[in-house]
Amino acid sequence: MNRPAIVPHVFRVAIVGAATLKGRELKEVLDEMNFPVADVKLLDDDESLGQLDQIGDEATFIQPADPEHFRNVDFAFFASDAAFTGRHWQSALQAGATVLDLSYALYGERNVSARSPWIEKELERESGREPGHEDLTTTAVVIAHPAASVLALLLLRARSAGSIQTVAATVFEPVSEQGKRGMDELHQQTVNLLSFTTLPKEVFDEQVAFNMLGRFGEGSSISLKNIEARIAAHFEAIVGKSVPVPSLMLVQAPTFHAHTFSVYIQFDGEIKASALATALAGEHVTIVDPAEDGPSNVNAAGQGNVLVSVRRDARNANGFWIWAAADNLKIAAISAVECAATLSTMRPLGKVQ
Amino acid sequence: MNRPAIVPHVFRVAIVGAATLKGRELKEVLDEMNFPVADVKLLDDDESLGQLDQIGDEATFIQPADPEHFRNVDFAFFASDAAFTGRHWQSALQAGATVLDLSYALYGERNVSARSPWIEKELERESGREPGHEDLTTTAVVIAHPAASVLALLLLRARSAGSIQTVAATVFEPVSEQGKRGMDELHQQTVNLLSFTTLPKEVFDEQVAFNMLGRFGEGSSISLKNIEARIAAHFEAIVGKSVPVPSLMLVQAPTFHAHTFSVYIQFDGEIKASALATALAGEHVTIVDPAEDGPSNVNAAGQGNVLVSVRRDARNANGFWIWAAADNLKIAAISAVECAATLSTMRPLGKVQ
Repeated sequence: MNRPAIVPHVFRVAIVGAATLKGRELKEVLDEMNFPVADVKLLDDDESLGQLDQIGDEATFIQPADPEHFRNVDFAFFASDAAFTGRHWQSALQAGATVLDLSYALYGERNVSARSPWIEKELERESGREPGHEDLTTTAVVIAHPAASVLALLLLRARSAGSIQTVAATVFEPVSEQGKRGMDELHQQTVNLLSFTTLPKEVFDEQVAFNMLGRFGEGSSISLKNIEARIAAHFEAIVGKSVPVPSLMLVQAPTFHAHTFSVYIQFDGEIKASALATALAGEHVTIVDPAEDGPSNVNAAGQGNVLVSVRRDARNANGFWIWAAADNLKIAAISAVECAATLSTMRPLGKVQ
Repeated sequence: MNRPAIVPHVFRVAIVGAATLKGRELKEVLDEMNFPVADVKLLDDDESLGQLDQIGDEATFIQPADPEHFRNVDFAFFASDAAFTGRHWQSALQAGATVLDLSYALYGERNVSARSPWIEKELERESGREPGHEDLTTTAVVIAHPAASVLALLLLRARSAGSIQTVAATVFEPVSEQGKRGMDELHQQTVNLLSFTTLPKEVFDEQVAFNMLGRFGEGSSISLKNIEARIAAHFEAIVGKSVPVPSLMLVQAPTFHAHTFSVYIQFDGEIKASALATALAGEHVTIVDPAEDGPSNVNAAGQGNVLVSVRRDARNANGFWIWAAADNLKIAAISAVECAATLSTMRPLGKVQ
């Protein structure tokens, strides 16, 4: 038989913000998930230029996010901060790259939607529909906030255990959501508290070490309220009308990695705890047995799955508590890479030119 | 006129567990609240014997909890651990002292009830009733868990803003609830994490530093589930049938001092956020203005009031989030001293004999 040789689809990729926590995570996840890359360009701001790095076994270094570096790039991942994304995404677009924005900068731009492949597959599974064809006009997407993806996945599945009356979710934000600056500030505050010296507060304008905060200080450029609104908006965008947005409270916790979630779900009628656990279990979710170590920031760090424990409320037979933990950076990176895989079907044959 | 001289009521007090965090807090609060003491005996276990201490301006030292030291004592506060209380409370009782148990050891004993003066006064205010007379057979009381008192106070008041449908409260436990051992373990774990050495886990059998836990390790002698059950039981005991026990989830946070509370309240109908804030405000509660630093462990530490912020849920007009913080040790100590003041009406004239 004389079959045509199968030409593997391989893609040229750029990571903008390659020196950020998200950028580094993305680089690892591209590798772990065997995303078919021909070439990965690491781009970042002036501060990080020239830093040596490694892609697979090859040494490489970080280059500026100049238009020329987007030439022939198929997928440009923006793991930079929002301002940097704002300055450079048009260059990527003009060079013909598909833009995947992990900085949320492009949310609200025309034809840019929030995407969560986990939720898209979950909705397809539920409805028995074939995966929808990608819209050929899609040239840029925002990767949904990881807390929105986690909450959406849990609530979509919980719904299959029974009719949901009320959901109240408290979500705990780790400092790594603010990148290396956030990590450094918690670390340095901790060191300084232990040695009784004054605390740096540039990022949060508050003591975050050993402290739980409902809002940051006035001088902080970030706002828990805005992040909470983003999680709610992304939840709605990825889930549609399948599940209403839960009542939501975002709290800053003195933790480095992983979101944790305390979610109260009240059903219309009595259901079994085992039925809820069965409904929640499945791809991307590990139900933690009571005999094992429970979900926590430390246990979730580095995991691609959401760790979940479930129990009935002590007093209310229709009420359940979910305690969950999920690696914020990892889940954002996995979502971005899965999104690129989905979008790759609409790229011209990704042969290296 | 020949009036009898007014004999001030002054009392002899013993603090059992005087070297514990709770014991030290109690000593301070007795002083701050000007509780009329003639004499304060500091008692504790062998480890702490002979430690020098100070009562007002007088130097004193810690003595063993022997029966002779309860002689002529009016109020014996047990700030020790539960086992120590179990061994010594009968001696105090036999010496004629009224026992105030801050260790929860006596909960469930015959004729021993959980008491929260804040809640008792709140219920009296509401009903317009006069303070009830103390039962003359009361010789020992358990001081209600401070998280139960805080939740009860908030929900009793919230109820006056509108009819409550659902309450889901996540409560964050600080390590000081486990006394100095808990404080030391978080401190030492933090130091060791920063210097990359192994973590001590004797108390929690888990990493508590920079970590949020839904349960402790298997090897821990303490259980979040049991503490949560205690909070619920005390809530019910002090509130009676006025408000149902809220759906409750207890989480261990990497914090030293103060409980924090994320409480979702859903009302039957729409109410104004300002109406809820007004309902919550009052004695023992400080509503924190959005322009000020929000409630947090750090802001609440050392305060006798509960710090509270309120906001409407972003999506649900009938839903509200309360974010609150309260100094666990201080509120337990204040409750104990106020309880002694209430019970003092039934002591024989507290003249020093």
